[in-house]
Amino acid sequence: MATSAPSLPKEQWAQVCPKVGGPLEYKKIPVPKPGPDQALVKIQYSGVCHTDLHAMNGDWPIDVKMPLVGGHEGAGTIVAKGELATGFELGDRVGVKWINGTCLNCDFCENSDEPLCADAQLSGYTVDGTFQQYCLAQTAHLTPLPKTVKMDKVAPILCAGITVYKGLKESHARPGQVVAIVGAGGGLGTLAIQYANAMGLRVIGIDGGDEKKAACQQLGCEAFIDYTKTKDLVADVRAASPDGLGPHAVLLVAVSEGPFQQAASYVRSRGSVVAIGLPAHAFLKAPVFDTVARMINIKGSYVGNRRDAKEAVVPLEELPKVFELMRQGKITGRYVLKMPDAE
Amino acid sequence: MATSAPSLPKEQWAQVCPKVGGPLEYKKIPVPKPGPDQALVKIQYSGVCHTDLHAMNGDWPIDVKMPLVGGHEGAGTIVAKGELATGFELGDRVGVKWINGTCLNCDFCENSDEPLCADAQLSGYTVDGTFQQYCLAQTAHLTPLPKTVKMDKVAPILCAGITVYKGLKESHARPGQVVAIVGAGGGLGTLAIQYANAMGLRVIGIDGGDEKKAACQQLGCEAFIDYTKTKDLVADVRAASPDGLGPHAVLLVAVSEGPFQQAASYVRSRGSVVAIGLPAHAFLKAPVFDTVARMINIKGSYVGNRRDAKEAVVPLEELPKVFELMRQGKITGRYVLKMPDAE
Amino acid sequence: MATSAPSLPKEQWAQVCPKVGGPLEYKKIPVPKPGPDQALVKIQYSGVCHTDLHAMNGDWPIDVKMPLVGGHEGAGTIVAKGELATGFELGDRVGVKWINGTCLNCDFCENSDEPLCADAQLSGYTVDGTFQQYCLAQTAHLTPLPKTVKMDKVAPILCAGITVYKGLKESHARPGQVVAIVGAGGGLGTLAIQYANAMGLRVIGIDGGDEKKAACQQLGCEAFIDYTKTKDLVADVRAASPDGLGPHAVLLVAVSEGPFQQAASYVRSRGSVVAIGLPAHAFLKAPVFDTVARMINIKGSYVGNRRDAKEAVVPLEELPKVFELMRQGKITGRYVLKMPDAE
Amino acid sequence: MATSAPSLPKEQWAQVCPKVGGPLEYKKIPVPKPGPDQALVKIQYSGVCHTDLHAMNGDWPIDVKMPLVGGHEGAGTIVAKGELATGFELGDRVGVKWINGTCLNCDFCENSDEPLCADAQLSGYTVDGTFQQYCLAQTAHLTPLPKTVKMDKVAPILCAGITVYKGLKESHARPGQVVAIVGAGGGLGTLAIQYANAMGLRVIGIDGGDEKKAACQQLGCEAFIDYTKTKDLVADVRAASPDGLGPHAVLLVAVSEGPFQQAASYVRSRGSVVAIGLPAHAFLKAPVFDTVARMINIKGSYVGNRRDAKEAVVPLEELPKVFELMRQGKITGRYVLKMPDAE
Repeated sequence: MATSAPSLPKEQWAQVCPKVGGPLEYKKIPVPKPGPDQALVKIQYSGVCHTDLHAMNGDWPIDVKMPLVGGHEGAGTIVAKGELATGFELGDRVGVKWINGTCLNCDFCENSDEPLCADAQLSGYTVDGTFQQYCLAQTAHLTPLPKTVKMDKVAPILCAGITVYKGLKESHARPGQVVAIVGAGGGLGTLAIQYANAMGLRVIGIDGGDEKKAACQQLGCEAFIDYTKTKDLVADVRAASPDGLGPHAVLLVAVSEGPFQQAASYVRSRGSVVAIGLPAHAFLKAPVFDTVARMINIKGSYVGNRRDAKEAVVPLEELPKVFELMRQGKITGRYVLKMPDAE
Repeated sequence: MATSAPSLPKEQWAQVCPKVGGPLEYKKIPVPKPGPDQALVKIQYSGVCHTDLHAMNGDWPIDVKMPLVGGHEGAGTIVAKGELATGFELGDRVGVKWINGTCLNCDFCENSDEPLCADAQLSGYTVDGTFQQYCLAQTAHLTPLPKTVKMDKVAPILCAGITVYKGLKESHARPGQVVAIVGAGGGLGTLAIQYANAMGLRVIGIDGGDEKKAACQQLGCEAFIDYTKTKDLVADVRAASPDGLGPHAVLLVAVSEGPFQQAASYVRSRGSVVAIGLPAHAFLKAPVFDTVARMINIKGSYVGNRRDAKEAVVPLEELPKVFELMRQGKITGRYVLKMPDAE
Repeated sequence: MATSAPSLPKEQWAQVCPKVGGPLEYKKIPVPKPGPDQALVKIQYSGVCHTDLHAMNGDWPIDVKMPLVGGHEGAGTIVAKGELATGFELGDRVGVKWINGTCLNCDFCENSDEPLCADAQLSGYTVDGTFQQYCLAQTAHLTPLPKTVKMDKVAPILCAGITVYKGLKESHARPGQVVAIVGAGGGLGTLAIQYANAMGLRVIGIDGGDEKKAACQQLGCEAFIDYTKTKDLVADVRAASPDGLGPHAVLLVAVSEGPFQQAASYVRSRGSVVAIGLPAHAFLKAPVFDTVARMINIKGSYVGNRRDAKEAVVPLEELPKVFELMRQGKITGRYVLKMPDAE
Repeated sequence: MATSAPSLPKEQWAQVCPKVGGPLEYKKIPVPKPGPDQALVKIQYSGVCHTDLHAMNGDWPIDVKMPLVGGHEGAGTIVAKGELATGFELGDRVGVKWINGTCLNCDFCENSDEPLCADAQLSGYTVDGTFQQYCLAQTAHLTPLPKTVKMDKVAPILCAGITVYKGLKESHARPGQVVAIVGAGGGLGTLAIQYANAMGLRVIGIDGGDEKKAACQQLGCEAFIDYTKTKDLVADVRAASPDGLGPHAVLLVAVSEGPFQQAASYVRSRGSVVAIGLPAHAFLKAPVFDTVARMINIKGSYVGNRRDAKEAVVPLEELPKVFELMRQGKITGRYVLKMPDAE
């Protein structure tokens, strides 16, 4: 049976993008009703991400819904749910993430790769997202939030956190091994350092500037290479790995193309280069001879699946440091919106 | 204790390259003596490979020994061995392959990745190879030849066979899944088709010309795409996979750069592109966005390790077909030298 | 939108078990209506399995629905489906298997282990099964049947086939490696031999009697050990593996306890013993010292997940042999019921 | 070329067991000379282990050398080495472990499973060990000791540490998952807790008594089950896992048989039970039905390979705690001998 909280309003406040290019309109729109496999989530906090800008501008190679309510990093509580929405109760604290719903039935969904589902619905992109007070999502794709997790803190985890955590898993680096993070001082990078440490990995941070260096070291990088200062980045990164053979994996969360074509040069033989960031029009590139003779692995990692999402929101021991540094303004944080009547 | 056959000659015939660029001299040279961990192999047959030409011309980015006896695909019998050379007896039938010896002690050797050993000795490249009657090799790197394996037939397996077999293992394609082989009608490709079938894989062959098409289909490709005739190779390869989502893996044994930059376009999401061939000065290249969003894996695969070598020489059920087709002149074969007093 | 064929009857014939212990009643019952995520399948053929007897007798440690329509190996066509039942159309040919539906949302479902879902519904056990003309199942758990697959032939694949195929995958044996199948001449075993061959595995069959020996060899076992004749089964199985070190994996589809306690003795060091069969009240048992010092892996494998089911119904090249032998009465087959108006 | 320190003595002090059953004699014996692939290690510290007692008593099912110098946890420096002993220099700090040497050439050695080599030489068991001032070992099996590692502290790591670290790797538990350690308060268990934490695992300790409880919690167990006090151990262990489904893995380092037959009852479905401890004459045992239906994995883990050894001696962040607690007498430590002229 479908169930809902006793007194749901019929209208709600939302940031609506009426057509490609905007501008946004802050206005009242109807509160939607959940389908049989969906839940309605009362959003308390929503993160804001560059992707939201791409959605508004419609400049990505995926069709965007219009008019659109953006947002894909939402934390809130369930206030209504359809008859098939199992595993959750009204009042449960949940996260709404980029993947809003999938068919759960195709080859990819069956294989725990639901982000690759051809029918994936994307929050704030192909369906309305979390920049509204009441947001729909397929219950199978909600992320339960443990009580120890604060809703304002978890919002950015639901996109950036899951993404870098997934990338680290895809790197197949094992506890004790070394991962280089390119773009370590940015929003994704600072989270990646923390996840890497919690996973028992040793981290070489790569970024530019003393401020980023300080932040990276404070967060747990055991070495830092400043690309604005080094004369031979490849040699320096290799030298920064304990045995000089280079890091076992490289995580690319940078925003320019250069590192995507350079990482294969300093990754350890048999190592993995994991592309996560999405610089516009950029290409991965590596010489065939070296890639073959050193058996290098270059791969792309998209957002995490449902399991990854659950794992990423568990309050890993050291994550609070990121937020403390953000609070102090020492690293570039991610913005979080508070909804009108968030508690 | 070191042991040797009762009457070893002191001199032997060999093809010697006196200096970079050649020409080869066919002359008598001394028969070498095995070190404590080595065996002396009386070569019966030796394959000839493009790599031998690169060795002679010294045009690869690895230093080549000079004067040099080339050759790295040799089959013969053990006639002497050092005191530490365990696991073999005089008279044993063995293969000498590209990797002649390694330290067995570095991080890569320890991890069954001895081809990546920094101290790897290469037959016919950094040490004298199989274009002589008596060739040295570290016993740990000899490949035992079962009695059912014919020495003239196995010679090319010791390089080309191992290499494509390893590439198929690295693709992580499982029985029942689909692999596309680019350059399917060539020397490596025709072997790859046979190994793939023996591993339970379904094969899409990609190459040019009716003769290669016929050979590929005869060898077991369930589909063939002729790149000289197709108007949309990417679409055609995808369509040739049973569900239209593209092959689970692509094996690149082509000799030109184009396919190395195109394969990521038609491999299935979450699939693997495995580079094996080594076109001169070529680069792998793929768009970041697509690689990330479809979670594509692009990797290099070098020669196999010792285990792979043993597995590759087992007479897989269908391999004889390759040689039959070679005999009939329907596919480009690989040359095999018979040594002066081979039996 | 929910859809259905134009003229569905309101009543149908079914074999109904009114209470634990039976007896069965063949009578008319209502045709059920699919929920939002379900489809109604017009059954053409249904396999019969020992499990159906356990269901009727209620002698397994899982509560059984009563009154019950048994059966969990059904092949037919979709005649109605709920509004959320994506990926299928009316008229599609599908299989109904043991796992009728799961939550698709728990830790196990998320990880492609839906057979371990705590809320799994079991066809012909916790919900009505395939011994009726019209059977319900969650569409996510239907197995699409390719046109080349015959409905009467595929019925037993939907339980026995999937189960042994899954067991072979769980064994992690690779193409070219050796698997021993204990109970090779029975219903599960004969299917397992065929799947193993199609996966590139080499098979040692273990069973009793000349008739079973002949069937096993005809199906592709390269060695056969007759437990009724051998004086030292452990030694004989080891000797039957090419290098004498024992099979890389052992598949236990036997119906008595003995082999479950003996297999660890002859499996290769580092090898896997996979329990599949379910002899009543039986225990797995192995000495700690030998298990540790040889690093043996003993594991249970239940039915396959949705992906395994799809893979198992693909007409693997050699499977027809099983049915031919069954037809000739040379192996103990599995019974298949034809529904009243099956085409 | 073989090399050695300038002034090696011809005789040395050693603890010699002249025949099975002992008693030990402390006397002078000749200093041995390394073979081509060996090094001579001047031992500074040697751990003492129960295995040494088994060696002296000859009560294990492996033939023991007599007279014998026991000991297999030695730390020291290289003072001589054979001509093939690459990768090390005179003066290098190294560890001598249980596996003294292997063939490096069999199927197991090739696959990084050298502890399973049929020709493995065992320190202080089949060859003389570390209870002497100068001990031989195959250089390939020496474990390099980083400068930050203290020789007296590392001695027990070379056996107990490697063993539990290997077991944790074999469990395939990932960072964030839960492992139960049975015998958590003993010598192996306390090390296991620390390694597990360093690998990002969450630990449930199982042992008896308040002292062990305190030690386990201090070392990083997030839950502790006292088997002497619980009324339902199975229920309590499950309840101690965050979602109540049980730990993802169980590490058995207990010294009695009971836990080896109980662990499968509380491990999570799809989880692994890893046997490490070796209670005399003990058996692993589990019901077939439950093992199959829950897809449980029961496996043995022996000592680590060379790679595992290197990884285990890296000064993991928290290991010092173990030694601090040992020093305070709060946990049962492992004895370490100081050699006559250790620095």
